[in-house]
Amino acid sequence: MKIDPQTTPPGDISKLMIRTILPRPIAWISTVSSDGVRNIAPFSFFMGITSEPPSVCFAPARKSDKAKKDTLANIEETGEFVVNVVTEELAEAMNETATDYPPEVDEFERAGLTPLASERVSPPRIGESPVHMECKLVQIVPVGKAGVVVVIGEIVLFHIDEKVLRDGKVDSNLLRAVGRMGGMEYTKTQDRFILKRKKFGRDVH
Amino acid sequence: MKIDPQTTPPGDISKLMIRTILPRPIAWISTVSSDGVRNIAPFSFFMGITSEPPSVCFAPARKSDKAKKDTLANIEETGEFVVNVVTEELAEAMNETATDYPPEVDEFERAGLTPLASERVSPPRIGESPVHMECKLVQIVPVGKAGVVVVIGEIVLFHIDEKVLRDGKVDSNLLRAVGRMGGMEYTKTQDRFILKRKKFGRDVH
Repeated sequence: MKIDPQTTPPGDISKLMIRTILPRPIAWISTVSSDGVRNIAPFSFFMGITSEPPSVCFAPARKSDKAKKDTLANIEETGEFVVNVVTEELAEAMNETATDYPPEVDEFERAGLTPLASERVSPPRIGESPVHMECKLVQIVPVGKAGVVVVIGEIVLFHIDEKVLRDGKVDSNLLRAVGRMGGMEYTKTQDRFILKRKKFGRDVH
Repeated sequence: MKIDPQTTPPGDISKLMIRTILPRPIAWISTVSSDGVRNIAPFSFFMGITSEPPSVCFAPARKSDKAKKDTLANIEETGEFVVNVVTEELAEAMNETATDYPPEVDEFERAGLTPLASERVSPPRIGESPVHMECKLVQIVPVGKAGVVVVIGEIVLFHIDEKVLRDGKVDSNLLRAVGRMGGMEYTKTQDRFILKRKKFGRDVH
């Protein structure tokens, strides 16, 4: 079956994209507005870019009324955000922060989450999450015609809870991260397999 | 535990990023060079951006010798690429194409994959994959100091194999996509759960 974006409604294209670009990591992003209101929201159009320096990006869509999401407005005002990792036990709380509340609602209070002071940026980290990335805005790249942007940020400090470490490394069995799928579905990450990367001419051992 | 990127080797930061930004969708990208050599390689720093028009991006790292990867070189030459989706049964073949072969190696032949002519771009699709996105280059955004770029492309045509559709939608149970984790690990996407998105003031039914 062929689907031509030029003759298909954007809503259908959007559903097709989230059903085929998956599983998606979730950036659970905490920000603060210039007048001090804290915000949390999840984004799954999210990826790493490079480790030199460590950089990530995400693409916030517009709200249903075409307004900017609070996360983007806050990052434009302050230049700072924190990426928190979502685990199985935090999935319900993450979903609570996906609700489109008015800007004045504090999502830490709303979702019963603990704000933890960051060290190098103003937005607090989510205390319940085992991994935090304190980020500073690098660049905002507009893409397409619906007001969507790619927000590129540099990770200036990582915080890792020792309870997800085994032999000094983050262990997927301990982290129990969840990923975003199509519709209202999420995937766990405990059903894994290993593929050894080959090098040209020989196996890597 | 705090990890400061300014005092940590980039290799360690890279491992930390792929162990905490997960599960990652895999863009299995086919390209062709200006002199006609076909290339396939997988990328998991990959995300959707917007549906208006449908746009995706990925971030190719440099090769171990700091040279540009063939995928990026080909896209710079031709402005075209195809994103193919990786399923459980294609994981081994995908891993074969992750090997760092010299530019003259045809990865379709090497991995035993079937090139299928695209309609609006020159690189062939991977016949064994159930979902193809024919893409045209929009923009290349340099990020950081290690030669990494974010390649932004527009999806000009989708192809969906009807065997992954149920009631006209791509079904995750039929697609059986795999995601990238840390180290040499991959995750299946069959262990899923549903969270209903709430709207402000009421539940969505």
